[in-house]
Amino acid sequence: MLDCAIIGGGPAGLAAGLYATRGGLKSVALFERGMPGGQITQSSEIENYPGFFDHTKSGMDFMDGWQKQCFHFGLEHRMDEVLQIQKYGENFTIQIAGKDPVSAKSVIVCTGSTPKKIGIPGEDEFFGRGISTCATCDGFFYKNKEIAVIGGGDTALEEAYYLSNICSKVYIIHRRNEFRAAPSTIQKVQNKENIEIILDATAKEITGDNTGVSGILLESKNGNIIKLEVPGIFVFVGYNVNNNVLKSSDNSFLCDVNEEGQVIVNLKMHTSIEGLFAAGDIRMDAPKQVICAAGDGATAALEVISYIQERS
Amino acid sequence: MLDCAIIGGGPAGLAAGLYATRGGLKSVALFERGMPGGQITQSSEIENYPGFFDHTKSGMDFMDGWQKQCFHFGLEHRMDEVLQIQKYGENFTIQIAGKDPVSAKSVIVCTGSTPKKIGIPGEDEFFGRGISTCATCDGFFYKNKEIAVIGGGDTALEEAYYLSNICSKVYIIHRRNEFRAAPSTIQKVQNKENIEIILDATAKEITGDNTGVSGILLESKNGNIIKLEVPGIFVFVGYNVNNNVLKSSDNSFLCDVNEEGQVIVNLKMHTSIEGLFAAGDIRMDAPKQVICAAGDGATAALEVISYIQERS
Repeated sequence: MLDCAIIGGGPAGLAAGLYATRGGLKSVALFERGMPGGQITQSSEIENYPGFFDHTKSGMDFMDGWQKQCFHFGLEHRMDEVLQIQKYGENFTIQIAGKDPVSAKSVIVCTGSTPKKIGIPGEDEFFGRGISTCATCDGFFYKNKEIAVIGGGDTALEEAYYLSNICSKVYIIHRRNEFRAAPSTIQKVQNKENIEIILDATAKEITGDNTGVSGILLESKNGNIIKLEVPGIFVFVGYNVNNNVLKSSDNSFLCDVNEEGQVIVNLKMHTSIEGLFAAGDIRMDAPKQVICAAGDGATAALEVISYIQERS
Repeated sequence: MLDCAIIGGGPAGLAAGLYATRGGLKSVALFERGMPGGQITQSSEIENYPGFFDHTKSGMDFMDGWQKQCFHFGLEHRMDEVLQIQKYGENFTIQIAGKDPVSAKSVIVCTGSTPKKIGIPGEDEFFGRGISTCATCDGFFYKNKEIAVIGGGDTALEEAYYLSNICSKVYIIHRRNEFRAAPSTIQKVQNKENIEIILDATAKEITGDNTGVSGILLESKNGNIIKLEVPGIFVFVGYNVNNNVLKSSDNSFLCDVNEEGQVIVNLKMHTSIEGLFAAGDIRMDAPKQVICAAGDGATAALEVISYIQERS
């Protein structure tokens, strides 16, 4: 029986593992099929993690240090695929692909959310080398440069506006002829001098070379091909919340989730189920930043320690 | 007129400053009378900040890097003492000791809380060199060693229990003849094999040498002096929430606070007042960890950016 099962190995899961093991819990396992680290390992550079400011280090280098720190304190990494988390009585059962289920006194779910892709040539190739899904993380790397934003919802427009305060010019590319965003947001974007809106245009291909992105090819409604030469492309076409592990066979969720499928938590990262905590991008109102996910993970682990102490 | 005034220069304030400036706000000032960094600068070693795992670096070294990172993106440090934050109409007025007031469109209050001291010889001298006010932060440094905990409330007993899972023995020293904690917590502590409770004992002096703490002298009710030889002493005698800047002359608070004087926030670090955000140890339910405060600061700064964008 595990004291704590941590599901997911991004910043939230790793921070939870560090705090849970260093805090004296004896058996803590982090379930992550691949290498821990999360989305940030795809970034070529990090400069907004407070206290870490080394332009020579990549996201992979950065998370490598985290892992070592966690394992130093006794965190166990299980390279298993978690299928479902169930609660029976006081304890949890973790269903694992191809293996026996594992029991745990507490669970921290940190499976995050995944930005949706548009699915065009060049997108995978240049991800993290000119293509980003996070304006806060990567906008500054394009200070005084021209960039393109793909998407037409609230997030796309808000992030485009955010980027327009940093970049010299922002193209917003949307495949429909009107935006699906709040009228005030649309107006703000329309009024901003250095934002150019391209409607009825479909992204066809992202071009580049071994230095990264060089531009994007668009097809207009009447079939014309437009080429934008930009070193940066931000894609905001929605997120998939990775909440499958909380779903039972009848599609109901183990704990309360909001309309978008994000786990409802309080400031202590408690979910609606005792002993079940959530941290990072899977929770409601997550700012989707490494530093915030790490804070969540630490918070959840401290609550797990209290919970286990109360039970014993 | 500042876009954002950040009050307090600990981890929450510095993280807020980094995110606000890097996110494109033009005029952001951090008000901190002394050097920024916060309580952590008094620590000789840090090992629970995810991604930072270098035993050769002190808390001061650690925060020095943070500061440089923030100032690199344009954060301005004002070495002023903030007396009071007021709101007039849409904007805030920051009252400053000995200077003209400053106007700001938004404010993030990050003034933290301060652990109370017992006020005995050796306490200041050995703080951070064997004396700690944070079990989560420093407990691990005393793995399999004997330590003493001073205090008799819920926090003291819970932290003592936490420490008893890491340390070989925990003495709990309390000046009264009974604890002021929840009955279940008291019972748990009483039943724990490696916890020894010393009631009716007053801490008189903390002893040590240039390697740090060596022990503590106690006086029992009948005047006997007891010496405990321990390398670590944890003091849990309460916190002062540094909320004076939110108090008006009639002692009412600018925003809603709870019974303990902590600022009430939601997951986005919004307070009850539009444009006013709180981050770090001044808020309710704060885990009092650097990583959590930093996450708060980043969250608040991102909300400030949205708020400023909506206003413009």
